[in-house]
Amino acid sequence: MIPFQYHNPTRLVFGVGAIAELQHFAPQLGRRLLLVYGGGSILKNGVHAQVTAALKQAGVAYVEFGGVEPNPRHTTLQKAVTICHEQQLDGVLAVGGGSVLDGAKAICAAAAMHADVWEIVVGNVKVSGALPLGTVLTLAATGSEMNSNSVITNWQTNEKIGWSSPFTYPRFSILDPQTTCSVPAEHTVYGIVDIMSHILEQYMHHQEQTPVQDGFAETLLRTVIDQAPIALQNPTNVDARAQIMYCGTMALNGLLSMGVRGDWATHNLEHAVSAIYDIPHGGGLAILFPQWMRYALDQGIGSKKLAQLGTHVFGLPKPIADTPTELLACAHAAVDRLQQFWQTLGAPTRLADYGIAHDRLEELAERTMRRGPFGRFIALDRTDAIEIFKRS
Amino acid sequence: MIPFQYHNPTRLVFGVGAIAELQHFAPQLGRRLLLVYGGGSILKNGVHAQVTAALKQAGVAYVEFGGVEPNPRHTTLQKAVTICHEQQLDGVLAVGGGSVLDGAKAICAAAAMHADVWEIVVGNVKVSGALPLGTVLTLAATGSEMNSNSVITNWQTNEKIGWSSPFTYPRFSILDPQTTCSVPAEHTVYGIVDIMSHILEQYMHHQEQTPVQDGFAETLLRTVIDQAPIALQNPTNVDARAQIMYCGTMALNGLLSMGVRGDWATHNLEHAVSAIYDIPHGGGLAILFPQWMRYALDQGIGSKKLAQLGTHVFGLPKPIADTPTELLACAHAAVDRLQQFWQTLGAPTRLADYGIAHDRLEELAERTMRRGPFGRFIALDRTDAIEIFKRS
Repeated sequence: MIPFQYHNPTRLVFGVGAIAELQHFAPQLGRRLLLVYGGGSILKNGVHAQVTAALKQAGVAYVEFGGVEPNPRHTTLQKAVTICHEQQLDGVLAVGGGSVLDGAKAICAAAAMHADVWEIVVGNVKVSGALPLGTVLTLAATGSEMNSNSVITNWQTNEKIGWSSPFTYPRFSILDPQTTCSVPAEHTVYGIVDIMSHILEQYMHHQEQTPVQDGFAETLLRTVIDQAPIALQNPTNVDARAQIMYCGTMALNGLLSMGVRGDWATHNLEHAVSAIYDIPHGGGLAILFPQWMRYALDQGIGSKKLAQLGTHVFGLPKPIADTPTELLACAHAAVDRLQQFWQTLGAPTRLADYGIAHDRLEELAERTMRRGPFGRFIALDRTDAIEIFKRS
Repeated sequence: MIPFQYHNPTRLVFGVGAIAELQHFAPQLGRRLLLVYGGGSILKNGVHAQVTAALKQAGVAYVEFGGVEPNPRHTTLQKAVTICHEQQLDGVLAVGGGSVLDGAKAICAAAAMHADVWEIVVGNVKVSGALPLGTVLTLAATGSEMNSNSVITNWQTNEKIGWSSPFTYPRFSILDPQTTCSVPAEHTVYGIVDIMSHILEQYMHHQEQTPVQDGFAETLLRTVIDQAPIALQNPTNVDARAQIMYCGTMALNGLLSMGVRGDWATHNLEHAVSAIYDIPHGGGLAILFPQWMRYALDQGIGSKKLAQLGTHVFGLPKPIADTPTELLACAHAAVDRLQQFWQTLGAPTRLADYGIAHDRLEELAERTMRRGPFGRFIALDRTDAIEIFKRS
């Protein structure tokens, strides 16, 4: 373990029927709110009706702002900021998945700072305040409901950049697993891959003496692996949906990264791909993560940890002797099992599945290097990135 | 899982050398603080010097208040409240173990409410505010550093009562595992028993579908069981001390009780004993918990969960068939292993070890029933309590 600080002020309100609690919490955000959502699925599945009923019961006024995209665009969010100013709104209620929540964080910060959204994302404006944010989550995936992170895309420059601020933790997040029962299979799978990737990014670290962090990560991985097929077979199995939703929140609320330095190279690789090709984040991760793992193993790094993943998560037999050869074999078997698991769920395995060819490799690699060499488990540069993209 | 809310605003500052960070955080509590501590061990082990140096560096004034007892007394704390008023103090910095932190929470609430400490503890005064509290932890045990709980003793009425308020979460808690390297073996053991008991109280629940909560609890138990002998063998092994300290915080910060209803009967039984006999809380728990488990098994309750404890935590072979007989045998083996483990560390196994005889059984049972039948895994009444005390 290395020294760390942990502070997560978000209130979780979890369980079937939890949206009714919104009437008690919405007033914490103010008297006049911006109600932010995405493509409109909440209009079909009844969530919009539940949310607005709760807001009315709370006596809170609201202005609606729908249409936040997957991979949310700074230009769209800037329009929402203008509305916040024009209508003199006090706070933001985001209803949707990770993209909506990430977008709402940018709106909250830009509105309070009277700044341009993209200037905040790239760090040119230092965030020293934000409108208060509450969320109602409708997709288990990004963990944005209980962290301060936000990923925003700029389609003018083909950049997809993550940022965060201590001021963008949601005041509260309402998680009713029923809202995820109508999520189509494809997006359920992307969410599952995203959750598992968040866990794996933090699991792949070099710190010694981390039995708690590793045990927590393995518990979450085993749970998602057990529950994912149930939720896909029977989409309205609310128990399985609840488990996955809960794991998604625990996967990226800071719990797993106390005292360790996770890798996060694969997320950087994926952001480069989806900033150019607009593919789903979860799809990109399913393709890239196994290749990143194999690339690390080829460099002689990570066999012990990936063998541990194999034995503790996938139930592979523990190597009898901890020789390098046995560990490596077990590690490769673990990566195979991971890839097979995602494939069985219906996730893609090759960039070619998205029609991505070799012609823009240099451009992709360029994007991964925006902040220089990346990855903390194994440091990667442009050459490494190209090699991983080629293998993918 | 059952619906739940989770909100824990405490900032953890963890790691060797973390006390130096106090200079950055102390001003959050105000300009003039009450520095609360216990019997004075912090004067010997250098922690007092480190803390006061950081306060001076921060330019924060302080008034010292030492002498908070183990099982802290409401009368002592009331004196501290008077000082807060007389000296017009802004906040409280507690430096010590669970008793000091619990006592400081009572001081903070009573000072802000201008109320009597005991009136707050018994709930006659509803807490609607508290002076801001920061802590520097020097003993891994109660988890008080990252929760809002407080247990206070009244020696006039021989009552030991737990209370809590959303206003008594520490603003920050500084955990430097080095501070625990000078804790004597006996108190190290009591702390370990306390930590494991907190985990077990929450682990013993009847909710279905709780793989995450159970997996987290088992991870913490395995880690404490692995690290405890190392810390006792080599008290200055700061890695082992860090693991135990971290587990202590995670054991009772709300993480393990999301979506489950823990039992907590054993804590009620123990509070009755230590309110009369002033024995160490950890010692009482080591005696009572195995007897509570066996009593539950004798009532036909808990064999499945305790067999799970045996296989997942103590490495017992999984029963081949899940027949009641096999599960029960495995469960009893798990309880034996738990008791043996605590005994090996040097914890007591019988109330007689503290010179407690059968003569005040009725009085003890009376105290356990203050709020009526207790325990949520198995509901106990006066007769059950007497039986468990007899067996102990």
